[in-house]
Amino acid sequence: MSTQAFSQRLVEALGPEVVATAEQDIAPWLADWRGLYRGQAQAVVRPRSTDEVAKCLALCQQEAVPVVPRGGNTGLCGGATPDGRPSNVVLSLDRMQAIRGIDTVANTLVAEAGCILGNLRRAAHEAGRLLPLSLAAEDSSQIGGNVATNAGGVNVVRYGMARELVLGLEAVLPAGEVFHGLRTLRKDNTGYDLKQLLIGSEGTLGVITAVALRLFPRADTRSVVLAAVQSPAQALQLFELLYEQCGARLQAFEFFTGDCVDLVLRHAQGVQEPFAQRYPGYVLVELADSVDEAALNALVEQVIGNALERELCLDAAVSASLAQVQALWKLREEISEAQRADGPHLKHDVSLPIERIPEFMVSAEARVRAVCPDVRPFIFGHFGDGNLHYNLSRPAGAATDWAAKEGAAITDAVLDEVNRYGGSISAEHGIGQLKRDHFLHSKDPLELRLMRDIKRVLDPAGIMNPGKLL
Amino acid sequence: MSTQAFSQRLVEALGPEVVATAEQDIAPWLADWRGLYRGQAQAVVRPRSTDEVAKCLALCQQEAVPVVPRGGNTGLCGGATPDGRPSNVVLSLDRMQAIRGIDTVANTLVAEAGCILGNLRRAAHEAGRLLPLSLAAEDSSQIGGNVATNAGGVNVVRYGMARELVLGLEAVLPAGEVFHGLRTLRKDNTGYDLKQLLIGSEGTLGVITAVALRLFPRADTRSVVLAAVQSPAQALQLFELLYEQCGARLQAFEFFTGDCVDLVLRHAQGVQEPFAQRYPGYVLVELADSVDEAALNALVEQVIGNALERELCLDAAVSASLAQVQALWKLREEISEAQRADGPHLKHDVSLPIERIPEFMVSAEARVRAVCPDVRPFIFGHFGDGNLHYNLSRPAGAATDWAAKEGAAITDAVLDEVNRYGGSISAEHGIGQLKRDHFLHSKDPLELRLMRDIKRVLDPAGIMNPGKLL
Repeated sequence: MSTQAFSQRLVEALGPEVVATAEQDIAPWLADWRGLYRGQAQAVVRPRSTDEVAKCLALCQQEAVPVVPRGGNTGLCGGATPDGRPSNVVLSLDRMQAIRGIDTVANTLVAEAGCILGNLRRAAHEAGRLLPLSLAAEDSSQIGGNVATNAGGVNVVRYGMARELVLGLEAVLPAGEVFHGLRTLRKDNTGYDLKQLLIGSEGTLGVITAVALRLFPRADTRSVVLAAVQSPAQALQLFELLYEQCGARLQAFEFFTGDCVDLVLRHAQGVQEPFAQRYPGYVLVELADSVDEAALNALVEQVIGNALERELCLDAAVSASLAQVQALWKLREEISEAQRADGPHLKHDVSLPIERIPEFMVSAEARVRAVCPDVRPFIFGHFGDGNLHYNLSRPAGAATDWAAKEGAAITDAVLDEVNRYGGSISAEHGIGQLKRDHFLHSKDPLELRLMRDIKRVLDPAGIMNPGKLL
Repeated sequence: MSTQAFSQRLVEALGPEVVATAEQDIAPWLADWRGLYRGQAQAVVRPRSTDEVAKCLALCQQEAVPVVPRGGNTGLCGGATPDGRPSNVVLSLDRMQAIRGIDTVANTLVAEAGCILGNLRRAAHEAGRLLPLSLAAEDSSQIGGNVATNAGGVNVVRYGMARELVLGLEAVLPAGEVFHGLRTLRKDNTGYDLKQLLIGSEGTLGVITAVALRLFPRADTRSVVLAAVQSPAQALQLFELLYEQCGARLQAFEFFTGDCVDLVLRHAQGVQEPFAQRYPGYVLVELADSVDEAALNALVEQVIGNALERELCLDAAVSASLAQVQALWKLREEISEAQRADGPHLKHDVSLPIERIPEFMVSAEARVRAVCPDVRPFIFGHFGDGNLHYNLSRPAGAATDWAAKEGAAITDAVLDEVNRYGGSISAEHGIGQLKRDHFLHSKDPLELRLMRDIKRVLDPAGIMNPGKLL
């Protein structure tokens, strides 16, 4: 069947308000938000219900038409962007925005895939509960995409990745069959946990249409500490102490280098030098609890006192107000934007066995400098999860096409070093198109074979998001 | 190849100290601990290493010999007991008992499958950390079995099931291939999370040989409250309040009926009537924190005060010492043993959407009494997880073969009602042999088909634990 005939069939089955086929209507759906990828498609389908998703997939499978599921388009790996096939159908979940229910006895939230994460967080908050998944793009990203990519963010050290928040999900498989797994049960030991396959599968096995998530008690009392450290090794010692003495209250443990602070002070508005002097490294700690402020503040005073006494940090500033909490976080949050403003750079979202980070940072830098001696590293990340954003900026004076020319060799060096340390080449962003070659090259052959075999079970016609991940 | 020739080949490959083939050596491995199941086997293999497990499986697959993996034999569903095939090989992990490492920076524990859960808990405690998986059989059960069955226990409301504690695992697949997934990374978004298939698969996909587990801060400050409630509905209101006001401290929320207290007082030693009068229901709450006792006690006083004021419970006793903590727990912990001492009964480990438990309890009792009017229900369980041990004892004066005669019809009624409420017929014990028929009968056909297809991917020859689960 010709592309045109197939598009027509989609329109007949789902209606012109659901299926767009005109070039100008399709164009906005063909690129990722960073502009790294641009593909082609014959149609954009925006279903309003699980049933419409099922109809779309069944038609596509009949004619072996590739389907590219798309959430909020906030991914960093091109996973939701069509590749070069003109036959692609982009399937956007953005019209499935209903919150099906919030229950404060069961502590669950059931929502359709297209709901914006930030809206769900606010809805939970208003109901007196916490949806802990929190990330920079939360006011654009959709929960279906968050779950399909197993999103991380700043609270993973306490609450885990998206995977750990999912109690159940509803999904449509390529033949149009609906997987009715939208259960809210806490305990269900009846066979293989199939939903785990869809979580983090980046749209390669089916389309998530709704999710049931765990909610937590609100932890509105917050305290933020910025600690200066000599080195990543000292940051880890501080982490060990805080983990032990603060218990479940520890909900963020972020690290960044002094160079990152330079960068932020240079490019961001309204940010202040945190201490009288510059230090080699900084740790931003957030503690949160559901009880009163006095108890949390007393604990923070005591623990930071211990840390200074044991020389696990060089200096420390404790927030005394919400404004100070926000000011301290701004130092960390502005790093990505400052680096963008600063010019071309290479991003590497990697994770390491936590205890090996200090060693890795030394040897990775040596590897990178062997390729590009004057590269400028700006290293930061979710240290408490072993997650580094190992970002490298263009050397001063290098040509504007530096990234295009030297990027591949530098990235090879970083990711190879990550593998040598038993780390992961993608901590929280996934594989998509961006890391596919490295993934296929470095993943254990047995695991790759099993993944391909499982892909064949769920998607025998191979229509789901081709060219991504596997 | 004859059974005898195959046993001989196993002995040649692995040595007589690893492979037992004499009838008297095999006999102790053929039954479950409750004596509900007894099977047959040609050999018992007790490997000392992953390599020996791999050799055993490769040989078995070559000749299509069924393999029954066995941990501590504490399961309640006959999952680790061979069925009637004389060709079965029982593969016990009990000799693989090494703790490969405990890391208090990464907060991980890596252990071989045969390690006794209680020993791992103690090892973590001595290192200053908590391994939160805790269940009645922890001093006999092995961690490999705990993970293979996705064990639950008393702390699930706070820390989740075994699945949520697993960072990585090593397993041998039926062809003798080793799945090297023993990673300790917190974040690793590189493809499908294959380990999730092995967790809870009850030995039907491969043999788990080692696991990497998350450790938590020790929470040694404990407070236990026993609250008397009018009904399950009131218990749920109390749960809602405690969840909201105690935050992450809430680590157990158990419910039992007044009838359970009668039973325990009648059969257990050293247990006291908790209040001046008997109430319809009881809730046992445990809070734990990593900070000092005074703060936790003040919070408990305040929250229980709120609960009494809002009439969310009828009476409450708060522990003032470790001895009182233990005395209150004993009321809950002795129920199973008291019911055993009381005589024949039917156990149903089920879970429900938490908010529907009160309604379920009314309608399930009506269904059961329609089959057996004088049955004596003793209902208790991990209420905060929606998990009920819906146990039913023989009516006074009924024949000794009551369970054999009426059990099937009663169990059908209970499990059918569980399905009607969207619950799970196995909350934490798994399927094994015990619930296989109900599982195959009630599970969604699409899910069953996917499970069978996945089973074929990992175990194409179908040698892994036949007759269990699928």
